Amino acid sequence: MTFAATVLTLYPEMFPGPLGASIAGRALREGRWACRTVQIRDFATDKHRSVDDTPAGGGAGMVLRPDVVAAALDSVAEPHPVIALTPRGRPLDQERVRELAAGGGVTLLCGRFEGFDQRLFEARAVEEVSIGDYILSGGEMGALVLLDACIRLLPGVMGAPSSGVEESFESGLLEYPHYTRPVTWEGRTIPEVLRSGDHARIAAWRHAQAETDTRLRRPDLWERHVGARVGSPSGARREKD
Amino acid sequence: MTFAATVLTLYPEMFPGPLGASIAGRALREGRWACRTVQIRDFATDKHRSVDDTPAGGGAGMVLRPDVVAAALDSVAEPHPVIALTPRGRPLDQERVRELAAGGGVTLLCGRFEGFDQRLFEARAVEEVSIGDYILSGGEMGALVLLDACIRLLPGVMGAPSSGVEESFESGLLEYPHYTRPVTWEGRTIPEVLRSGDHARIAAWRHAQAETDTRLRRPDLWERHVGARVGSPSGARREKD
Repeated sequence: MTFAATVLTLYPEMFPGPLGASIAGRALREGRWACRTVQIRDFATDKHRSVDDTPAGGGAGMVLRPDVVAAALDSVAEPHPVIALTPRGRPLDQERVRELAAGGGVTLLCGRFEGFDQRLFEARAVEEVSIGDYILSGGEMGALVLLDACIRLLPGVMGAPSSGVEESFESGLLEYPHYTRPVTWEGRTIPEVLRSGDHARIAAWRHAQAETDTRLRRPDLWERHVGARVGSPSGARREKD
Repeated sequence: MTFAATVLTLYPEMFPGPLGASIAGRALREGRWACRTVQIRDFATDKHRSVDDTPAGGGAGMVLRPDVVAAALDSVAEPHPVIALTPRGRPLDQERVRELAAGGGVTLLCGRFEGFDQRLFEARAVEEVSIGDYILSGGEMGALVLLDACIRLLPGVMGAPSSGVEESFESGLLEYPHYTRPVTWEGRTIPEVLRSGDHARIAAWRHAQAETDTRLRRPDLWERHVGARVGSPSGARREKD
């Protein structure tokens, strides 16, 4: 099955862009995903092809007109989930990425200027998603990020299927630190346990490192991880076993 | 002054990529920022030009060799802050973006495969940064996102200088919702207050909306916002005024 990505944007030339290289590019050429763009400006109705207007109530910048964006969106025959990239959205996480990658595709709405007219999100089934707590020049970078995260999870795209499981966030923890050759570099040696060949000890060390690093680097993730373990029914069941 | 972006990557063809279009592209042509790439593979020392090796202790995937990446990094004459894009890093936020944009440039380290050898971060002054809690196929998308966020803040890049101030996160809150013409669209009308012309009422409504939306959509941000207001010395001072 081909994962169908549809991107509504004022800058269709940005796609597939960097997704045309490396593993996403190979997957594109292999037909594992397809990238279609819709130029929002094609749905403008006045002779100047306007897509935006000044914010109601005043202020700097311009806002995308709801009628123009809705017309562009309504032109997509099979929209799948529709996601608008906006800093007001729900933060993207690996769980949502996994859900999206397991579906047939996604339609991405890329804003520019001050963003979308809020009525659009009330009138159409649009999920507002943010890729992080910073401001970008438009939704296009967010769309590229979201697609990259999904594409690598499509069947046949990543080499080793086990690669996806032990990574950061998949277990609610940061990933443990990695080491490779040379064994000693600039006087720094790979931790002894990793050279021991004792698989149980290595697994225990990695898990402890992942826990320590998450606690120190990301107290927010750690709190959620501990809460989920203690509070969930499955956690309680495990304790009784 | 030209903001100097240096990107260490195995895929230099991804840059400037989407940053060559729209406002970042115009800023690039105007010389407000410059984009240089360094091919990490050029610093491999064996005849196969290997940049990676198997993880110490076993497991799927490959890890970038510290000696090869360090050699690539040491080749950069003026590295400015060096940032590695990795899911184990500190989450990027608008405050860090502002600091970086105010500096002379940034050097970005893009990992692939399972990532970097941890000793690299101990041996060199490298800041580990994450753009969000999801997994990408490499650091390149993160580098594009970080650069886009910085470039729009460079002097002369954004049209109206006031645009940057009222946006999401700049005040620790999400941005208020936007509306524009048509006044009535599909039976939905722009909130009356925004059509009142009463600037004080509009400002109060927008602030209240920003607070409500932050509280409902992002309790994590809201908690930090309220904490900062109550707990900070400047907050205490304001109360006495």
